[in-house]
Amino acid sequence: MTKNIPPINSKIPHLPFGDHQDSPFYGRDIISVKQFNREHLDYIFDVAHEMYEMVARVGSFDLLKGKILASLFYEPSTRTSSSFTSAMERLGGSVIPINNVSYSSVTKGESLPDTVRTLEAYADVIVLRHPEVGSSALAAKYARKPIINAGDGIGEHPTQALLDLFTIHEELGQVDGLTVTLMGDLKYGRTVHSLARLLTLYDVKLNYVSPDLLSFPSELFDEIAATGISQASYQSLSPVLADTDVLYVTRVQKERFEDPVNHEALKGAYVVTTDTMTDAKEKMIVMHPLPRVWEIDMAVDEDPRAAYFRQMAYGQYIRMALLAMVLGKA
Amino acid sequence: MTKNIPPINSKIPHLPFGDHQDSPFYGRDIISVKQFNREHLDYIFDVAHEMYEMVARVGSFDLLKGKILASLFYEPSTRTSSSFTSAMERLGGSVIPINNVSYSSVTKGESLPDTVRTLEAYADVIVLRHPEVGSSALAAKYARKPIINAGDGIGEHPTQALLDLFTIHEELGQVDGLTVTLMGDLKYGRTVHSLARLLTLYDVKLNYVSPDLLSFPSELFDEIAATGISQASYQSLSPVLADTDVLYVTRVQKERFEDPVNHEALKGAYVVTTDTMTDAKEKMIVMHPLPRVWEIDMAVDEDPRAAYFRQMAYGQYIRMALLAMVLGKA
Amino acid sequence: MTKNIPPINSKIPHLPFGDHQDSPFYGRDIISVKQFNREHLDYIFDVAHEMYEMVARVGSFDLLKGKILASLFYEPSTRTSSSFTSAMERLGGSVIPINNVSYSSVTKGESLPDTVRTLEAYADVIVLRHPEVGSSALAAKYARKPIINAGDGIGEHPTQALLDLFTIHEELGQVDGLTVTLMGDLKYGRTVHSLARLLTLYDVKLNYVSPDLLSFPSELFDEIAATGISQASYQSLSPVLADTDVLYVTRVQKERFEDPVNHEALKGAYVVTTDTMTDAKEKMIVMHPLPRVWEIDMAVDEDPRAAYFRQMAYGQYIRMALLAMVLGKA
Repeated sequence: MTKNIPPINSKIPHLPFGDHQDSPFYGRDIISVKQFNREHLDYIFDVAHEMYEMVARVGSFDLLKGKILASLFYEPSTRTSSSFTSAMERLGGSVIPINNVSYSSVTKGESLPDTVRTLEAYADVIVLRHPEVGSSALAAKYARKPIINAGDGIGEHPTQALLDLFTIHEELGQVDGLTVTLMGDLKYGRTVHSLARLLTLYDVKLNYVSPDLLSFPSELFDEIAATGISQASYQSLSPVLADTDVLYVTRVQKERFEDPVNHEALKGAYVVTTDTMTDAKEKMIVMHPLPRVWEIDMAVDEDPRAAYFRQMAYGQYIRMALLAMVLGKA
Repeated sequence: MTKNIPPINSKIPHLPFGDHQDSPFYGRDIISVKQFNREHLDYIFDVAHEMYEMVARVGSFDLLKGKILASLFYEPSTRTSSSFTSAMERLGGSVIPINNVSYSSVTKGESLPDTVRTLEAYADVIVLRHPEVGSSALAAKYARKPIINAGDGIGEHPTQALLDLFTIHEELGQVDGLTVTLMGDLKYGRTVHSLARLLTLYDVKLNYVSPDLLSFPSELFDEIAATGISQASYQSLSPVLADTDVLYVTRVQKERFEDPVNHEALKGAYVVTTDTMTDAKEKMIVMHPLPRVWEIDMAVDEDPRAAYFRQMAYGQYIRMALLAMVLGKA
Repeated sequence: MTKNIPPINSKIPHLPFGDHQDSPFYGRDIISVKQFNREHLDYIFDVAHEMYEMVARVGSFDLLKGKILASLFYEPSTRTSSSFTSAMERLGGSVIPINNVSYSSVTKGESLPDTVRTLEAYADVIVLRHPEVGSSALAAKYARKPIINAGDGIGEHPTQALLDLFTIHEELGQVDGLTVTLMGDLKYGRTVHSLARLLTLYDVKLNYVSPDLLSFPSELFDEIAATGISQASYQSLSPVLADTDVLYVTRVQKERFEDPVNHEALKGAYVVTTDTMTDAKEKMIVMHPLPRVWEIDMAVDEDPRAAYFRQMAYGQYIRMALLAMVLGKA
């Protein structure tokens, strides 16, 4: 998946992953969390931490001045597209925002490969959000410029998983040795699946707290078990709260329930309140990929352990790091 | 409403209005015209005039280089969003445009406070247009970065009022001593209400010209009367035209009338034509917040007293001034 | 159509085309291919080639730093708007994207002249895409800043025609002496009409290959014949393929056919496959304005003579050249 910025008349072959001169990510696509080993993550987090310090000190800087990001969103995601846009702008680069693709040439029947090959005539890197699983891999197959997967349906959302892990790393100083409790919709939540996979690269203990209907997929449970990670499932938070270092909460969507009464019934059992926080460790964090609805009470926002808004900021640094890396500037 | 750009892990309290070190607007929200006294306006207009001169001389400059504006529009307004975008860009800053919020996470049920707290992880200042009264004040309550109200339903649109007043100030050299005639829909027109309020800070005479159905609200009339400003209402322009220094025309929307015939009937009575201009002072200006429909005949556009397109340009300078001020650069 | 950036309170007259001091395009509108003579094209292609070399060398540069482009699209066109955006950004300028005009003030009834006069208060140049023929000329009549026509319905799309011609010029080294074959929908295809008109400025031979239903308009055939250019029409590619230097393929839209069976029937006859390429010259190019549907088989993409994706890149350089020229920087 290695790429280069070739002259207009040439094509360069994709080099195998990892063997580029300076950075392991220069010219590469970011498609899946499966691309990353522990060393990669250390490297990404080092760069992301540097980005954090630079932003704190000077706000923005011109590392990617003159570079152009095509932000290609086939479905809306304010959070993700804003985060990539600010990441590029804080690095001095520019953005081509393409948000209404349903109204664009796609409705005239153009294929994703053609759209991507058109956009790479204008841009240096393409961020792609698309409702279909595998769309980013397909785009990457045809594109000569790096593709960053910003979510492909129920497939992957690797930059979200990276920012989640980076949040843990920055807030608690390390990942090894932590107990991470995932709570809410663990069945459909793409976010928690990717995060759980990445966490297997560390020495952690995983707890799953969810109603039966929304429990963690057994195939993924088995996949993770094979790595030797300790896992346990619960229907309530109370047995594990006191030991939890990271409480990762996800949204429970009403649409998952045939009977709305069942959805209402859950609200009491899977909501984080100030009472929850009283029973939690003094040094722990609460995370949420946002948007939240009722899963975390607004009163919790004032608690310094509520990390979900800071999580957004960490996302910006991760995306700055990735953009700089694939463009060969980190 | 004072704000600061805090480190990622901290929260700073809102300081009371007006007591910041350098500028009275550094780190502040711009929510309502009621925030401003005469001294504030003098200051804002000085900065805006400087912006005008800088743009005339060099087009753009790098005062806000590296700063990012989140332009959050829950309803479309090409004029206002374009004006803020160009203001930010002429100051060397960048913009995250968020225009289709109805399609974004809001439809998944996210609250405005959460959206704003997400965006401030990426941006240095947020411009908010929202259909509900009080939305900007709500956003400002939760945000740590400055919020600029770009219209909250039938509530306020303070930057529009400031640019209207700045237009008068620049075109006629002063505001004191002027006779300002407001004509058209004076009942529903948010624009004229805010402008009338701001004008009470000056020594002016106010005339209201409208059909009965769309007359100036009596509560606001009383509120203004209490400041000692001279006011009078008319059903036709002719009695006051010859004395008018500023003729501020607003759009009369067809939807205000149950019977479209009544709307048609008005067109003759409340339209500005070249004949109107013949009877007007030699030194006066015609203003309109735009878009106009039939209220001002296109033949009037050629008259040098037609100030409504120049008004747009003044808007850019006012918004440049406000952005620079809240970000501590003016 | 000459324009200038006047002080806020003045109006400057439009000077007749061609008599400005430095560049024949400074302050001008780009509305129609009929504006250009051979000398103009040489000049534009020289500048565009320079842009290509600059981009290849440094990616972006600050020729238009501080300049603002208003990108006003009344109908979506990802390709064209992205191309103009990247062109402006690679020159260091900024963009105000206005893509959802149907949701904006236009729905409140604002006229195009008013919209354009509003936007020119903020921007230095306006790119306009509009579904109605003549809209760009109308906008140019009222605007004091340069208007660039990015497509006005079935009217013109001059920057597309320029980029098509520039592609031929760059890929084959010259235009004189070439045989250009246009194939597909030659009746409704605005693109091929404009290109054919531009090609009359060169010494070329034109072939038209299309089904009867979609044949080249006879009025335009006669117009071109009057210039002395050699033309011939065919229902199949085979008689002319071996002599063709440029094969320009256009999309055949299903909607053009009352009976979809007729559309299906065409697919075999007017598609470019690897077999087609076997019979084509060794030195020739295949072009397509994109999006393509079935007209060119994806297997052809690998052929170095497939120039349609490179065509997109040439578009960026042409638009960079035009923006720089109308803003007096080339």
